[in-house]
Amino acid sequence: MSVIGLIQHAALRLTDASGESGRILLSLFIMLASAKLMAELFERLRQPAVVGEILAGIIIGPSVLSLVQPSSATEVLGEIGVVFLLFTVGLETRPGDIRKVGRIATAVAVLGVVVPFFAGWGLLVLWPGYSAIEAVFLGAGMVATSVGITARVLSSMGFIGAAASRVILTAAVIDDIIGLLVLAVVSSLAEGRIRYLHIALTALIAIGFAILILTVGGRAVRRVKPRVSSLRIDHSFLLFALVLCFGLAAVAGMIGIAGIVGAFLAGVALSEATDDTRLHLQAGALTEFAAPFFLVSIGMKLNLSIFLSPAVVALAAVVTVLAIATKLIGCGIGALTMGRRRALQVGLGMIPRGEVGIVVAQIGLALSAVGDKIYGVVLAMAVLTTLAAPPFIKIAFAPETRLPQDDDEVLDQPLG
Amino acid sequence: MSVIGLIQHAALRLTDASGESGRILLSLFIMLASAKLMAELFERLRQPAVVGEILAGIIIGPSVLSLVQPSSATEVLGEIGVVFLLFTVGLETRPGDIRKVGRIATAVAVLGVVVPFFAGWGLLVLWPGYSAIEAVFLGAGMVATSVGITARVLSSMGFIGAAASRVILTAAVIDDIIGLLVLAVVSSLAEGRIRYLHIALTALIAIGFAILILTVGGRAVRRVKPRVSSLRIDHSFLLFALVLCFGLAAVAGMIGIAGIVGAFLAGVALSEATDDTRLHLQAGALTEFAAPFFLVSIGMKLNLSIFLSPAVVALAAVVTVLAIATKLIGCGIGALTMGRRRALQVGLGMIPRGEVGIVVAQIGLALSAVGDKIYGVVLAMAVLTTLAAPPFIKIAFAPETRLPQDDDEVLDQPLG
Repeated sequence: MSVIGLIQHAALRLTDASGESGRILLSLFIMLASAKLMAELFERLRQPAVVGEILAGIIIGPSVLSLVQPSSATEVLGEIGVVFLLFTVGLETRPGDIRKVGRIATAVAVLGVVVPFFAGWGLLVLWPGYSAIEAVFLGAGMVATSVGITARVLSSMGFIGAAASRVILTAAVIDDIIGLLVLAVVSSLAEGRIRYLHIALTALIAIGFAILILTVGGRAVRRVKPRVSSLRIDHSFLLFALVLCFGLAAVAGMIGIAGIVGAFLAGVALSEATDDTRLHLQAGALTEFAAPFFLVSIGMKLNLSIFLSPAVVALAAVVTVLAIATKLIGCGIGALTMGRRRALQVGLGMIPRGEVGIVVAQIGLALSAVGDKIYGVVLAMAVLTTLAAPPFIKIAFAPETRLPQDDDEVLDQPLG
Repeated sequence: MSVIGLIQHAALRLTDASGESGRILLSLFIMLASAKLMAELFERLRQPAVVGEILAGIIIGPSVLSLVQPSSATEVLGEIGVVFLLFTVGLETRPGDIRKVGRIATAVAVLGVVVPFFAGWGLLVLWPGYSAIEAVFLGAGMVATSVGITARVLSSMGFIGAAASRVILTAAVIDDIIGLLVLAVVSSLAEGRIRYLHIALTALIAIGFAILILTVGGRAVRRVKPRVSSLRIDHSFLLFALVLCFGLAAVAGMIGIAGIVGAFLAGVALSEATDDTRLHLQAGALTEFAAPFFLVSIGMKLNLSIFLSPAVVALAAVVTVLAIATKLIGCGIGALTMGRRRALQVGLGMIPRGEVGIVVAQIGLALSAVGDKIYGVVLAMAVLTTLAAPPFIKIAFAPETRLPQDDDEVLDQPLG
């Protein structure tokens, strides 16, 4: 036996002792390192880093290199990742901004939900080879704009303060909530019957929950803040923020909407109560660590072999084009009172799909209501819309930076 | 059906849709909130917060309230928690300090390993009802001082800069490494045969790995730092630090020592290369979030019902007393050249057991080499030594703060 052979043998045998823990650490390392390598590559190609991280997941996952397998461990990390992602977006959102652009944003969100849903549903009803329930799931998967991805793209390009950006972010949050209600309807459909009363109740509870946190959350946080600061444990305010984040996420989960909405609302309530830059930096660190696991675990679930079928590729292409066109038209109409150019900006900004669409597809897969193909089509649509939007957003927003004053007028006058 | 019944029913049905994710978020919330409530309670009682967090795990775990079950999800979070804990301790350690106190610390560590090991092993050989392999595991479980717990106790009491503290921290790291080598021996024993050559090789590789990182790690990090800063991704230095942390942890796992040693070494290398307070704050946030999951998951694994047997309680008591006495004597003798009072401080500071001892017990349990009882005894010993040490540490260090200058003399003269 050679020396190298001996070392390998020894390493293998002794790894068994710390086996499980060693394997987990290796998986975490591979996921984090590959995500960030791809993110860097995409940044250099002037493409959104999020797309690079999803592609990293596809590459290291079972479809290509099979370095890491999706497991309940990668699942829980992905869950934590998206919770922190939305929590951080919430921290950067002022409830005042949401209230100010509320009416336009609601119109944008509602039209941006209705148009894509019926387009996706109608398409698959006409397209041969898919079930009626898959058509409903595809429609539901096309509904929600990705708050996280939109916010990242807009802020990395420096447009986060523009009037259209505020409308986009607020509308994206509202359509996330609508998307999750659609999901509740669709899931009960998949189980054989719709319980209208329960869904109406859930909708009411969910809307009430969101309004409650948005109206009194900030004040409540401000009131308990001195008491939190007087606690003896270290970093008490950060820990309070984290407990609030997971607490509201758990409440959201219990009343039937996705946990990420609760995490977002926790962030908004905290942002109103404090300007703590330490908290921003700390929450940012948590997101930087955890978000890659969310994006990578999305990619790992994609079964690439479905794209060997030309029919599936054609469907994915049509769905993607439809996803772009329907948001552009639906949201654009909703924002027309802001003027045509801003309506175009809003429409383009709402194009990227992400978290919620993929969550819809995952739940469809878990309920066996949706096959590998529709899961892959929704995932491809989410990735491609995210890839397609940034160049257009850039062009549409480009002159914006030169006219910052007229922006506030546009917002203040018709809404004030 | 009452309105409340309807709401509950609706909530239950709709939770099914987001089911798995909702359950995970609820578990995370319960673990985090209970850990921090108990930490706050223990701080107010002037007891170490870590003990409160372990007790929180016992309370919410299957032994008492059964609110959260140990699962692969809680496992992976616990793993990440201890990795960040040791990474942060590494960040606060200067390799220069390690080199300065190296000789005394090595003597302290070696004697602090040998004495408790043979005491624990000898005790269980004589005690009726346990196997020879359980005796070896008990000895191994008594070996390693908890770096994380010791560092937390010393820094929360403001003694982290004292001469004895530096010796304690360095010796604790060295005995962690020795403890993990002992674990490798013990694990191969449990599997039926000892492979001396492989263990010798592992020891050599592990020591070489540690020395390599301690000698050239800092310089290497300093050299790549400008290139890392020029990367396009956000928070590139934090992400580099995290990749390094999990990378070295994975390497440590592959060469047969525990991942936490790699995480610690990554922290030390980074601390030498940078004074980045942002990195400290960000790593601190990650530890604050993740460490509770480590401590809670330790507690959740304890089967309280074993303590219904008076014989087990008696054994746990004897083992705890022995664990305290042997570290005090072994480490005290190792530090005698520093003078009697400092030898006493070092001996007391080395008493708390933790991570590694519990890891040993866990691996013994996983290999079926150790029963529930010895697992519980080791866990009780780890918790009780952590509880017992702080008051004594406080008394022994109390006059220290008044004599800061003579401290450096003591260290510089005999070692310089």
